[in-house]
Amino acid sequence: MSNAYAQLLERVRDITRLQSVGALLEWDQETYMPKNGVRARAGQFALIARMAHEKLVADETRSLLGDADVPADDFVAATNLRETRRAFERAAKVPAKLVAEIAGTGSLARDAWAKARAASKFSDFAPLLARMIDLKKQVAEHVGYETEPYDALMDEFEPGATSAPVEAIFAELRSATTSLLNRILAAARRPDPSILTRHYPRPQQETLSRRFAEALHFNFDAGRADTSVHPFCMTIGGSGDVRVTTRYLENFLPAAMFGTMHEVGHALYEQGLLAEHAATPMGEAVSMGIHESQSRMWENMVGRSKAFWTYHYRGLQAMFPDALAKVSLDQFYGAINTVTPSLIRVEADELTYNLHIVLRFELERALIAGRLAVLDVPGAWNEKMTKMLGVTPANDSEGCLQDIHWSMGAFGYFPSYTLGNLYAAQFFEQARRDIPDLFERIAANDHGPLLEWLRLHIHRHGRQFRAGELVERVTGRPLSIQPFVEYVTGKFSPIYGI
Amino acid sequence: MSNAYAQLLERVRDITRLQSVGALLEWDQETYMPKNGVRARAGQFALIARMAHEKLVADETRSLLGDADVPADDFVAATNLRETRRAFERAAKVPAKLVAEIAGTGSLARDAWAKARAASKFSDFAPLLARMIDLKKQVAEHVGYETEPYDALMDEFEPGATSAPVEAIFAELRSATTSLLNRILAAARRPDPSILTRHYPRPQQETLSRRFAEALHFNFDAGRADTSVHPFCMTIGGSGDVRVTTRYLENFLPAAMFGTMHEVGHALYEQGLLAEHAATPMGEAVSMGIHESQSRMWENMVGRSKAFWTYHYRGLQAMFPDALAKVSLDQFYGAINTVTPSLIRVEADELTYNLHIVLRFELERALIAGRLAVLDVPGAWNEKMTKMLGVTPANDSEGCLQDIHWSMGAFGYFPSYTLGNLYAAQFFEQARRDIPDLFERIAANDHGPLLEWLRLHIHRHGRQFRAGELVERVTGRPLSIQPFVEYVTGKFSPIYGI
Repeated sequence: MSNAYAQLLERVRDITRLQSVGALLEWDQETYMPKNGVRARAGQFALIARMAHEKLVADETRSLLGDADVPADDFVAATNLRETRRAFERAAKVPAKLVAEIAGTGSLARDAWAKARAASKFSDFAPLLARMIDLKKQVAEHVGYETEPYDALMDEFEPGATSAPVEAIFAELRSATTSLLNRILAAARRPDPSILTRHYPRPQQETLSRRFAEALHFNFDAGRADTSVHPFCMTIGGSGDVRVTTRYLENFLPAAMFGTMHEVGHALYEQGLLAEHAATPMGEAVSMGIHESQSRMWENMVGRSKAFWTYHYRGLQAMFPDALAKVSLDQFYGAINTVTPSLIRVEADELTYNLHIVLRFELERALIAGRLAVLDVPGAWNEKMTKMLGVTPANDSEGCLQDIHWSMGAFGYFPSYTLGNLYAAQFFEQARRDIPDLFERIAANDHGPLLEWLRLHIHRHGRQFRAGELVERVTGRPLSIQPFVEYVTGKFSPIYGI
Repeated sequence: MSNAYAQLLERVRDITRLQSVGALLEWDQETYMPKNGVRARAGQFALIARMAHEKLVADETRSLLGDADVPADDFVAATNLRETRRAFERAAKVPAKLVAEIAGTGSLARDAWAKARAASKFSDFAPLLARMIDLKKQVAEHVGYETEPYDALMDEFEPGATSAPVEAIFAELRSATTSLLNRILAAARRPDPSILTRHYPRPQQETLSRRFAEALHFNFDAGRADTSVHPFCMTIGGSGDVRVTTRYLENFLPAAMFGTMHEVGHALYEQGLLAEHAATPMGEAVSMGIHESQSRMWENMVGRSKAFWTYHYRGLQAMFPDALAKVSLDQFYGAINTVTPSLIRVEADELTYNLHIVLRFELERALIAGRLAVLDVPGAWNEKMTKMLGVTPANDSEGCLQDIHWSMGAFGYFPSYTLGNLYAAQFFEQARRDIPDLFERIAANDHGPLLEWLRLHIHRHGRQFRAGELVERVTGRPLSIQPFVEYVTGKFSPIYGI
């Protein structure tokens, strides 16, 4: 192993450490920071982000990358070198001035977005959105792409992904989804989700969240669970310090319950990365989509399964007798698996959720390609919603202003959500094959076998494989919508009697 | 104002930001970090500390300091320039290699100290202590001094202080203390402190801590109060984010109660620094001793006063009826003001506390001067304890191994504690003159007048004045033991009937 590689790795570790320190600054801001701390925090965060960036794009990094030499058969070193080169090249291609402009515009745009959303007035947000799109187009030009600029942006979240195959798979998915959705909407039998909006006192919900986190083997010696306005999972100190947050709504049980399982799913991935590769690419997650596959699997395929509730429903009833004493397991299971086309992505069910993503993918791709004008966004959004989901936003607030992503310049992020759902289904199908009694184990509250399977096939590899490679390696075939379609069909058919 | 000064100040702000980030890393480690986070945290902390140091001693800092030019009558700029120059010169004089050696030795020495203390075996700690003393002597030689190397070390905590005047004032204080102590020990009347070791349930203690913090005007919008093994106050984001911690002992009421007031005293100083000078010397505290004057004043002169309990004792009784229902206010007041020579510094009363400091000052000064050999420390310690306090440690654990300071290389820190007590008494005497109804206000639970006085005379000045200057400016005369002696005599005479 060359000395340059060793020096490069120490540099990478320092960059990762700075990013982790940035994560702590964010975590603290969302959980415990007193309100008057916000001004100093902004300065601290900007400084740490700038130092991490400078350390990455420094001439010394370039020269170490040039000199580093690792044995071809050393996959750890090869992965670290490849991923560091990738991160360096991407960062070095974008001028510091442009990075700073995006940060500044993002700060203004987030503020404008929040106000425009509150006033439900897209036109107030449009100028800064247009500015942000222009800046992100410049980023795409600097980074470079083969087919279209959007690919250069998506690549940040899903390395190696390009829009043409994503478009193809999304088209298939949309068609299959619409077909199943139409059968569901025509069904005579319908579960009653209103039982989930009864009164669920917070203290019991907190006990429940802790119980589920422990059942899923979240390691509290290597993490924490706290409360925040928006739930998230954040890695503060490699696999030894991974923190999740939850929010509690007393009149909507799923928020904390499934929110906890979702974030714990992310956290199990981070806790499962190998400590020996801490602060290097081999100790990091593959992509946003693979990350989402973990959270979705635990939230939906485990957390919304009949097997899970076969074990847990009695305990839930005992905890919330006023709300649930007279509700049967089947009624509850139906309620948490109700399919209803709705306006808000984050409240959507497992089936219609992906339509929200397809819509965003189409719109943001058109925006970046210049095929859609910013001022035409509300019209295009509402038209697509009506066409794809059969519901029409009454205003911009419940339409094109609902998500924060664009204000932050996160174009190309949305596809990862649906890719995550597809990866999850394909992984889970394989896990069921490899663990024949998987649902019996889940019904016995034994989540060890699934977690061990994920550790073995996914977590321990860090960034060794690209998302597509990993899927093929683990499941023996390329990504396909089939496992997801079979999963949702298998789940919703009995519930809706179709 | 020169452009160099503006650039220098921006550099200083970045250094301060890095130090604040380091403070958050420490705060988090002591309060919420999961135990497996410790390995990554060590790397993060070392990196941030190194970056702050490098930014301070960089050639660019030197050149900006050389070019910076500020109008003589601009006291803000003059203070910032003077203090930045001071910090730079001190840091730049010490070779990076020596700094790293001290950090490494400190890490080993803390571990060795903890083990030696547990085993009560000084000889196990002695080799690393000897090494640390040698390194700190080297620091003193690099930094430079006029009379003796110890001065160069003390100057880190108490800028401008030297041992000769400290020795003189400590000698006076020791003599006055011993004289009062002998009268107290000979007194027939004695309060009964055993009532403080009854059972005090933690939930009520938590309510009490919050109540006292609020009564003292701790601003919870600009700070937090949490729990930790060792109580501390830490500034995370200038005056907008100052955090204290408390520990709760169910069989020792004073720990949380007075610990809270002590740390809140520190916090009020930090919260009172002017936000317009954030992250620059004008927005920082004068010295460790002046800081301690604030914590001691609120803890002792306010918190252990008859006036304070005239208001609060009834509420305390209602909170802990089992322990206190039959205890009168006078009995309680006596209990919290009991004077007893004891072995452990942190448990010492207001009067004997300073004797513990005089002892440490004499020993560490002799160690640095080479007049005392490391292996002779236990004997010298025990001999001085017996002579000064009339009690003799049965082993090293309750003797020379009780404090962490030396293992961290913090030689020259101890004097700040007693200087703080003296500053506090002198400031408080002046405050009583300026606020004639001060004790009536305290007895009405109105702590606003004292806080406003401290804000006006001390907090808002940041580092404009050295400790000695500040004392003269605020009280009209140089530091003297008289106010402290009058304060303790006035307090303890009626309690002991002498």
